[in-house]
Amino acid sequence: MDVLVVGSVALDTIETPQRTVEEVLGGSASYFAYACSLFAPVRLVGVVGTDFDKKYIKQLQKRGVDTSGLDVREGRTFRWHGCYFDHGDRRETVRVEPGLMADFEPDVPEEFRDSGFVFLANCNPSLQLHVANQVGQGAVVFADTMDLWIETQREDILELLGRIDGLILNDQEAEHLGGTTDLVAAAMKISGMGPGTVIVKKGSHGALMLVEGDVVSFPAYPMCEGVCDPTGAGDSFAGAFMGMLAREGKLTSGTAKQALVCAIVVSSFCIEKFSLERLAEISMEDIEERYESCRRMLTIGPLGAEE
Amino acid sequence: MDVLVVGSVALDTIETPQRTVEEVLGGSASYFAYACSLFAPVRLVGVVGTDFDKKYIKQLQKRGVDTSGLDVREGRTFRWHGCYFDHGDRRETVRVEPGLMADFEPDVPEEFRDSGFVFLANCNPSLQLHVANQVGQGAVVFADTMDLWIETQREDILELLGRIDGLILNDQEAEHLGGTTDLVAAAMKISGMGPGTVIVKKGSHGALMLVEGDVVSFPAYPMCEGVCDPTGAGDSFAGAFMGMLAREGKLTSGTAKQALVCAIVVSSFCIEKFSLERLAEISMEDIEERYESCRRMLTIGPLGAEE
Repeated sequence: MDVLVVGSVALDTIETPQRTVEEVLGGSASYFAYACSLFAPVRLVGVVGTDFDKKYIKQLQKRGVDTSGLDVREGRTFRWHGCYFDHGDRRETVRVEPGLMADFEPDVPEEFRDSGFVFLANCNPSLQLHVANQVGQGAVVFADTMDLWIETQREDILELLGRIDGLILNDQEAEHLGGTTDLVAAAMKISGMGPGTVIVKKGSHGALMLVEGDVVSFPAYPMCEGVCDPTGAGDSFAGAFMGMLAREGKLTSGTAKQALVCAIVVSSFCIEKFSLERLAEISMEDIEERYESCRRMLTIGPLGAEE
Repeated sequence: MDVLVVGSVALDTIETPQRTVEEVLGGSASYFAYACSLFAPVRLVGVVGTDFDKKYIKQLQKRGVDTSGLDVREGRTFRWHGCYFDHGDRRETVRVEPGLMADFEPDVPEEFRDSGFVFLANCNPSLQLHVANQVGQGAVVFADTMDLWIETQREDILELLGRIDGLILNDQEAEHLGGTTDLVAAAMKISGMGPGTVIVKKGSHGALMLVEGDVVSFPAYPMCEGVCDPTGAGDSFAGAFMGMLAREGKLTSGTAKQALVCAIVVSSFCIEKFSLERLAEISMEDIEERYESCRRMLTIGPLGAEE
């Protein structure tokens, strides 16, 4: 089944203690699409300016991403400049230049409206709702959000939550939205606002998922000093998750658990190199290898019986 | 096989936002023994004063703990007074009264020296080494430590690490001892200092284990606002871990993984009530239930195949 993603396509400047890269391909929809396309066909809706290098569009197309919903307009592409400290645990935004994203009012092309799975990347929740209302009622719709909207547009978020099937957010956002530092309790409260599935990303501590009433907690893929650039970890996580659901064709507790491990594995690759470099290199074989290694790690026999 | 624990038996005063309890049974060896005795016979070495209520000794004995190594001497029992904030994530020590623990020089009774598994609870590392040298070479010896010793007695810790099979410590301590905030790298560095097994406790984020060269990461048992008193979580974790190893009779990658899940499960019970109250209630059946629920949660099928 096809996956539709609506979000930003950007030019990123990224500083880490080791190196700085300038104006590389970034944006939530780009990371999502790269990761998702490893599992299922992706349709992308976004906007870039005439300053956007066409080679990036070709790269997306080479991965099978349908870019016919990427609006190329007179103006400047969204630019983000960030700086990482402390093994990537701490991030500072140096500069944001919204460019054409400032007036982004996404319209889903007619031929994308039958998408089985939809991801509304982080964006003003009223725009996310606008998109959710354009796709079929049968679609499985997930969204991301951020602290800014929780702070300033809580009403819009609550309306959005009533319309979507799943919310993917990080631990700080979950605490903020759920009103408690207890993440299981926060996820339950958020689920009570609408979405049956809530996924809380905990960075190097893995992820927590509430699905069909079950609480599922998985550790991160154990990495040893392999973090190069954490940018896009969350969006590639969401891309792999939605891609795996689409590949399986349904959202159940079982498919969501497998998809969650795929999400953890793909985001572990994402952060090993700058920008989309590592995601461009890996294949399903690489994913299977780490997935299997997670599966071996997490498999325990019944109490007292050997594996 | 029998498990020997050498550590503190204390009287704790604990303040939480909900309630304060005064002079209840505490100490690393008490928590360890309560948890461990659910899995295997325990032998305890420690010291208390004549002010120590004999009912606590009877309670330990009722759990099958051999208290013949608990020295009851003229003087004051070790007292600890702590205060918790923020769902137990933050702790402040209000007062410590070392009492007889100040001059604690543990001697392992002759009849305890054949113990198959030995746990050296947090204590001055030179004393831990003194104990380690009193038990048989065939014993599986694990130890705990704390920031204070890493700071002030690094040489003694390094000597201890050369003698023991495993070290159990928390994330902050592992970062401190390993010299990096990357916990997998820190665990590897610590293992390079001697112990084949290193376990890093991450509180509500679970635990990381290095065993026989394998990296194993498990999430915490998902709890929803169930934390009453975090005191003893780490010592009951260690008690269940060593108890399960002793029950299986050997330390291998397989038994250590099962023991790690038992440790996570038992510490999740420990923090549900004050002091040792909850550990005194639970049975192997309760442990099996949570263990099975962890096993179900962590079980995923091969990629794309239903469970």
